[in-house]
Amino acid sequence: MVKLDKHTAEEYTRLVTQALDANNKDKFRELFLELHPTDQVELYSKFSETQQVQVHNYITAEEFAEVFQGMEIDQQKELVKRLDHAYATELFNNMYSDDLASFIGELEDKEAKEVIGLLDKEEAEDIKEILNYEDETAGAIMTTEFISIVSSDTVGNVMESLREKQRDAETIYYLYVVNDLHQLVGVLSLRDLMFSKLDEKIENIMSTRVVSVNVNTDQEEVAKMIKKYDLLAIPVVKDDGEFIGIVTVDDVMDVLEEEATEDIGEITATRGSVDANITSVKAARMRAPWILLLMFLGLITANVIGQFEETLETVILLAVFIPLIMDSAGNTGTQALAVVVRGMALGTLEKGGVKQLLKREFGTGIMLGLMCAIALMIIVPFLYDSYVLAFIVGFSLFITLSVATMVGAIVPIIINKLKIDPAVASGPFITTINDIIGLLIYFSVATALINYLPQV
Amino acid sequence: MVKLDKHTAEEYTRLVTQALDANNKDKFRELFLELHPTDQVELYSKFSETQQVQVHNYITAEEFAEVFQGMEIDQQKELVKRLDHAYATELFNNMYSDDLASFIGELEDKEAKEVIGLLDKEEAEDIKEILNYEDETAGAIMTTEFISIVSSDTVGNVMESLREKQRDAETIYYLYVVNDLHQLVGVLSLRDLMFSKLDEKIENIMSTRVVSVNVNTDQEEVAKMIKKYDLLAIPVVKDDGEFIGIVTVDDVMDVLEEEATEDIGEITATRGSVDANITSVKAARMRAPWILLLMFLGLITANVIGQFEETLETVILLAVFIPLIMDSAGNTGTQALAVVVRGMALGTLEKGGVKQLLKREFGTGIMLGLMCAIALMIIVPFLYDSYVLAFIVGFSLFITLSVATMVGAIVPIIINKLKIDPAVASGPFITTINDIIGLLIYFSVATALINYLPQV
Repeated sequence: MVKLDKHTAEEYTRLVTQALDANNKDKFRELFLELHPTDQVELYSKFSETQQVQVHNYITAEEFAEVFQGMEIDQQKELVKRLDHAYATELFNNMYSDDLASFIGELEDKEAKEVIGLLDKEEAEDIKEILNYEDETAGAIMTTEFISIVSSDTVGNVMESLREKQRDAETIYYLYVVNDLHQLVGVLSLRDLMFSKLDEKIENIMSTRVVSVNVNTDQEEVAKMIKKYDLLAIPVVKDDGEFIGIVTVDDVMDVLEEEATEDIGEITATRGSVDANITSVKAARMRAPWILLLMFLGLITANVIGQFEETLETVILLAVFIPLIMDSAGNTGTQALAVVVRGMALGTLEKGGVKQLLKREFGTGIMLGLMCAIALMIIVPFLYDSYVLAFIVGFSLFITLSVATMVGAIVPIIINKLKIDPAVASGPFITTINDIIGLLIYFSVATALINYLPQV
Repeated sequence: MVKLDKHTAEEYTRLVTQALDANNKDKFRELFLELHPTDQVELYSKFSETQQVQVHNYITAEEFAEVFQGMEIDQQKELVKRLDHAYATELFNNMYSDDLASFIGELEDKEAKEVIGLLDKEEAEDIKEILNYEDETAGAIMTTEFISIVSSDTVGNVMESLREKQRDAETIYYLYVVNDLHQLVGVLSLRDLMFSKLDEKIENIMSTRVVSVNVNTDQEEVAKMIKKYDLLAIPVVKDDGEFIGIVTVDDVMDVLEEEATEDIGEITATRGSVDANITSVKAARMRAPWILLLMFLGLITANVIGQFEETLETVILLAVFIPLIMDSAGNTGTQALAVVVRGMALGTLEKGGVKQLLKREFGTGIMLGLMCAIALMIIVPFLYDSYVLAFIVGFSLFITLSVATMVGAIVPIIINKLKIDPAVASGPFITTINDIIGLLIYFSVATALINYLPQV
């Protein structure tokens, strides 16, 4: 299979286009079909609509299925409108069930029904089943094209049938052994098969214990299992143990990226809009709710300061340290949040235990607070010529950082336990809470010591 | 191979421990060696030191290599001290070169030399070469255990030699074809081999174009290639084209997680400390530089407010909106930062182009600013009974958000272009810059309009 680097891509594109323009079907097929699907998509996307129609005439719908599967959803939708009925039917029936299901999942109900209507009965049922599983579960990302064999068969027989079936399976590196009820009873790898005698029974060379995931398992959990055991694919079973699909390692890589992006979205309150390729209006619409909501929370913070207007009026210098208190509280809270969110995602948190982490963060917060307090108590007298002010700022910051670190760590854990949408534990929210706490502490300490401060 | 779930793990542990306590070597070997290495590590770690010594007597160093490879570095270091010389020698010589190299890379120079001294000449050279490559490159994460064949060989011959060699290779699903200079000339998959006639020449069934990466390619780039082409492994070549190793998909999954964690570290200024399993002191020591540095930047922000003390003294109410301006500027900047950092990591940014993204963010910033400004101009008069104050706050926020969004998007791009440590483009830094910008705008506007405001 050919894969292109930047150097060869241009030259190759020229050759393929030439073949197309010269109506040289054989040459075109030879060049185009040798390419990796990823590069086929890139090349195909560069063609004009007329050229694309020509491509459909030159390669079969089965061959084109590979190209179609590699396209972005918008491109798929736009293209399907232009395909003729027979070609589309053939195309859909030759797609992997996971790819077809994610395509259909993005269509309007009416269109989706139309597409499913074009499918063979068996394929249609597979697809309907996949579409029924909740988003982001094993069922939603699995493929139903896998190879299952029975334990009483011989190596030679299996090899023979593989020769015929292999084209349809998404991965043939694992062979799953099932019983009469289609429950998993074993697994063997292609290499186990290859290096056994032809008359050996499968049951003698298979491993009898197989890791599998339930169809409702969260996709993040599925990714963790594949990663933990360095698997190329993991089988998916129903509650009654029926083996119904596999999730492959390449799908899981996408899941890992998605989950990381979700984590970042959570920490920065950009969920759903960490995408460089959407318009200003769309980006603004997705982010605006956060920004507006947070701005209203800012009005609450304003109210906190308003409560202490009298203190502030007496010693206007106190206003100067508002940003410092706020920033420090926000920063330490965000750090703790990042540790917890990432720990939950990577599963390292479960290992160490939540309690231990909270104890750790408590200790960390106190130490950070102490360091900052000491630094301020040394510097502030030089800058603002007041030991009392230095004490107020330093002491407040010590308490604030100790509390803010804990808030950053505890809030996402509680949210997670309560199964509330974790987005409300996002960085900016925690920052705002910490701002309010920090300012309350600061102005309370200042008000208590107001008589010792140099008045305006 | 057995893999354990929570239910069976306890029972299994009991059985294995029983076999160990009864000095039943055969039973222990039967049970223990059937386990997946990941579970072997978990089980082994639960044993006492005496039991662990017993394990070393029961299983060969070659078998134990699988267990050792799965351990965390600290556990490996601690264990090696207790192993006897011959067992350790055998162990190291049976590890995969990538795993061994990462272990040795963590040792002190003197210890590292000792370990390398134990290795066979060929293995020692492989390891030294890997250790010479820069961290986070293809060379540093590759394994040198792969299968290479020559194009003039027949399928039957290759199968025969695979039967012997397969134990040593980390993955045998791809077979790489090399010429006399050990340069890559082709690739075929195990399934290609399996389904060809025995007397077929390799050159007739191999693909002649192979995607490979240079040994100095960044690991993130390697991960992107494997992901793009859904590969199980990618070959690594030197500048002169010599084929020297492969990077497998399971190593790349770790890379993706690492890179995501790095991104989050960058956004939250927690780099290196997003690890739930380190002590308070260590966590505090890693995070303190950020917190202290940012606190000093907070003193600059204090100075900005100090400059406007007179304005503030005239209208004390202005202090009330300091948090709102700061929070909003920080939030929108962080959102833009997250989009850019994630876009760079996923490669989506390259596709769309930096210019387009900046234009997008500029538009988004203006729209967000406008929305917030309008909301404030409506609400503030109700709360604080002043249209001028509402205008000052709303107008400042409009300008601030427009600018802050751009700052959040541009800074990481510039930093990346200049190849400076991207950590200085972290969220808190950008937030602090945006705070200063926001407060400068706010107080400048307020000072200009001071005469129209109700005085204290």
